[in-house]
Amino acid sequence: MFLKNCWYVAALNHELIDGRLLGRTLLGERVLLFRGESGTVFALNDRCPHRGALLSRGRLEGDGVRCMYHGIKYDGSGKCVQIPGQDMIPPKLRVPGYPVVERSPFVWVWMGEAAQADPALIVDLPYLHDPQWKGIPAYLHYDANYLLIVDNLSDFSHLAFVHTQTLGGSEEYAFVTKPTVIERQERGFRVERWHLDSDPPPFHQKVIRDKTAKVDRRNIATMLVPGIFTMETLFAPAGQGAQAGNVAAAKEYRNCQFMTPETERTTHFFWSYLNNFEGEDTTISRSLLGSLIEGFMEDKAIIERQQRTLEEDPGFQMLAILADAPLAHFRRVLGKLIDAEQAGAPSQSSGTRPTTATG
Amino acid sequence: MFLKNCWYVAALNHELIDGRLLGRTLLGERVLLFRGESGTVFALNDRCPHRGALLSRGRLEGDGVRCMYHGIKYDGSGKCVQIPGQDMIPPKLRVPGYPVVERSPFVWVWMGEAAQADPALIVDLPYLHDPQWKGIPAYLHYDANYLLIVDNLSDFSHLAFVHTQTLGGSEEYAFVTKPTVIERQERGFRVERWHLDSDPPPFHQKVIRDKTAKVDRRNIATMLVPGIFTMETLFAPAGQGAQAGNVAAAKEYRNCQFMTPETERTTHFFWSYLNNFEGEDTTISRSLLGSLIEGFMEDKAIIERQQRTLEEDPGFQMLAILADAPLAHFRRVLGKLIDAEQAGAPSQSSGTRPTTATG
Amino acid sequence: MFLKNCWYVAALNHELIDGRLLGRTLLGERVLLFRGESGTVFALNDRCPHRGALLSRGRLEGDGVRCMYHGIKYDGSGKCVQIPGQDMIPPKLRVPGYPVVERSPFVWVWMGEAAQADPALIVDLPYLHDPQWKGIPAYLHYDANYLLIVDNLSDFSHLAFVHTQTLGGSEEYAFVTKPTVIERQERGFRVERWHLDSDPPPFHQKVIRDKTAKVDRRNIATMLVPGIFTMETLFAPAGQGAQAGNVAAAKEYRNCQFMTPETERTTHFFWSYLNNFEGEDTTISRSLLGSLIEGFMEDKAIIERQQRTLEEDPGFQMLAILADAPLAHFRRVLGKLIDAEQAGAPSQSSGTRPTTATG
Repeated sequence: MFLKNCWYVAALNHELIDGRLLGRTLLGERVLLFRGESGTVFALNDRCPHRGALLSRGRLEGDGVRCMYHGIKYDGSGKCVQIPGQDMIPPKLRVPGYPVVERSPFVWVWMGEAAQADPALIVDLPYLHDPQWKGIPAYLHYDANYLLIVDNLSDFSHLAFVHTQTLGGSEEYAFVTKPTVIERQERGFRVERWHLDSDPPPFHQKVIRDKTAKVDRRNIATMLVPGIFTMETLFAPAGQGAQAGNVAAAKEYRNCQFMTPETERTTHFFWSYLNNFEGEDTTISRSLLGSLIEGFMEDKAIIERQQRTLEEDPGFQMLAILADAPLAHFRRVLGKLIDAEQAGAPSQSSGTRPTTATG
Repeated sequence: MFLKNCWYVAALNHELIDGRLLGRTLLGERVLLFRGESGTVFALNDRCPHRGALLSRGRLEGDGVRCMYHGIKYDGSGKCVQIPGQDMIPPKLRVPGYPVVERSPFVWVWMGEAAQADPALIVDLPYLHDPQWKGIPAYLHYDANYLLIVDNLSDFSHLAFVHTQTLGGSEEYAFVTKPTVIERQERGFRVERWHLDSDPPPFHQKVIRDKTAKVDRRNIATMLVPGIFTMETLFAPAGQGAQAGNVAAAKEYRNCQFMTPETERTTHFFWSYLNNFEGEDTTISRSLLGSLIEGFMEDKAIIERQQRTLEEDPGFQMLAILADAPLAHFRRVLGKLIDAEQAGAPSQSSGTRPTTATG
Repeated sequence: MFLKNCWYVAALNHELIDGRLLGRTLLGERVLLFRGESGTVFALNDRCPHRGALLSRGRLEGDGVRCMYHGIKYDGSGKCVQIPGQDMIPPKLRVPGYPVVERSPFVWVWMGEAAQADPALIVDLPYLHDPQWKGIPAYLHYDANYLLIVDNLSDFSHLAFVHTQTLGGSEEYAFVTKPTVIERQERGFRVERWHLDSDPPPFHQKVIRDKTAKVDRRNIATMLVPGIFTMETLFAPAGQGAQAGNVAAAKEYRNCQFMTPETERTTHFFWSYLNNFEGEDTTISRSLLGSLIEGFMEDKAIIERQQRTLEEDPGFQMLAILADAPLAHFRRVLGKLIDAEQAGAPSQSSGTRPTTATG
């Protein structure tokens, strides 16, 4: 059961170059994404209504697509425009389409009622279109329900144990730091956590000159429905009073991650990790991309195994600890929205602009 | 749900050389096929009734087979004839057998009531035993229900798009030609389609000298229950009035294809594609075999993907176009026969000789 | 449905060297087995009750284990002893433990009610701790229900057909020998079978000097619930009256095999095959290990195929022959014990010391 009346990241826009017909399952539905010859991006159900062949194995023609089984052609809205050898086109022969919006580097899709698909509801992350911030957007596939990834991102104590040698840096992080602020929001939460006078974690060490000087580290994370995670990370020289506001000489990161359900048990995971101290080339971005992939693979091993454990024993009840408060809040919020949507109530989303961490 | 009281192709007879015990699932049942030492072909259920070991992993002995788990031996009718270490043979200890008929190059089996298994009901295709016609019979396995292959063969407009570079030759075939005759039959249909003044398709070009002269192409196809497809193909020099009956200098092919359900979602696909202009050696037959496999692999990719699409969404309703009339008729005819058989009515097949395209 | 109130072999004790956290599914439950730093062996449910991460991917610490997702630590009894960043430990946060006993070379576990787990109920096989007997314990995994392996071991006529070239030696074994004694026991059966004046079977030939002299072969096998097979094998020179008790110059083997259900359709298979004529080195043990694996792979091919056959057609009813009397008795005995256990009756096992073949 997914929240349908909201925007999901469906693709990275570079995936749609060269007329590629990209078939991708989203929320359990097969979707065809393509950029028509006019430059516009379209999203259609990826199934020819005639005999069920995949349109993503068809042929791009203008702003439309031709099924390469019996040659039936559809335009970008899904309307059938040609049946070889037959003049009359039955009105029922059409492919469902989905509202789609390109906001570089992402392509967003709306899987619910098209009438509610207001592009203003797409979360606005200014650093994605600010030349000061550099990064390389990327993708991973997870064999796990998207909420297990949301859970993972909701408690940073896992940095200490899962990512000791990559993103975390030491087990101390779990023992000596706690969230200083947990803010429950209407559509998610915001968490702030400081780690003072600590060694820089490995991923950060790789991209700075002085690899031994102690740092004060601040993470401010937000999670928004349906599965949008953002984090502002700051490393300031230790001892200069960063927590009191003196962040001169700090190095900062901006991180956005998007969990889009593929099916109930698999997830598309998109992200971009940006920095504001990139040099002339892409060395730092590329180092960070490598470090993030290294760290995410550590999460992936645990989370995919969790998925199997839950499937093996659907009766298993997890037991919460104090650190689970944010994730419990998020699941409650999301559950209410899904219930309301299923009950046919007007979408909670229309008119309510989501709060972002950077807003 | 399959039609059981009819003949299906179970194997190519060369598969049963050298005493091979061939285990093959037919209509969901495991069947053992073998040629006994007398030369006779037998078909038994491929499961020892003692502990369920596969008889196809047993040992051929005379016209019988010995299970190589505990050594129990059965004759070609399935009767138990020896239990090592035990004198009395329980009458219930027997293996069900199936009527089987060898008609080179095929072996036919009857999976329904043995009493109704009249060999005269086996479709007679004269070119299979006429030395004028040459070909190499072959086999492919499909991960798809057999009716999806029947569908594929029921509308030749797919030649234009699926087989443009192999069996079809051009997309024009779908746009400028239509079936000139569609004949609905009691147990199937017959379709005739002409394509005049066209380039010879790639598979034909490979085996003729003049690769550029235009041809008039005629396909006459029939489909018969349970899944027997035959096609007569003629290529005559364009402009000499082939459609009016002048087929001098024509080159002809005879094609028979047999779709035998393995399970509800997989199929055994047997065929032979014959020509009447083979030279001294088998060059032309071998070229045609290669071309047919190339074309069938194109079908297979689409049809197996269709199977997955249908399994993913059992509620999907295909929408018919005009070209689907023959396949709709075939499904109706087959459905009625299966219903009658399930209801226990006398088989429609006994006494009714199937009409063949060449008859 | 398994018998739970009894001891099962869970591992070979050499599997727990070097602090290995061994995750193994037993009777459908994921179990973590490990040797703590004190030397004691522990068995815990292999799932952190917090978020379901595998403890076998955690870290050994003393006689406990730390989950490496969020760092929660448990002692060897399953009690939570640390939550990073949280002082209060919720009493419900604990991991179920299982009684476990090490009896070299095996580790035994009790999957039922801990209060009934009396180590005195573990079958005592004196040759396992008698320096006169040498062997190399080993393990195989089966994709089959454990009772199909029990069945296999309950009728030795299969030696003649499955193992002709390895453990059996000739098909004659099935035709000229029969069990001389079948003793039905409260928790299993005992079978004795002689094969007089026969060629030594291949596995025995390999480890003796005179490979052609005829032998009298005696097998005494016992099967005990839940799936414990033992066999004493004797090869005496033929013609000296072994059956009357003259077993001078005989060579003997002791064989114990343990079938532990992994799931309803898979099995852990442990064994040790010992001899009393080993020389200075391990040549004979190693030869026998190789021969046994060769023979077991022959069984495995048949038994795993049987499993698939039963899954394909759950309605299939096997038909018994006379040689199936022991296996039928065993299934009856085991079925009664499981029924009693399910009905909540006091375990039949407590207080009843299992009879062993060597006792």
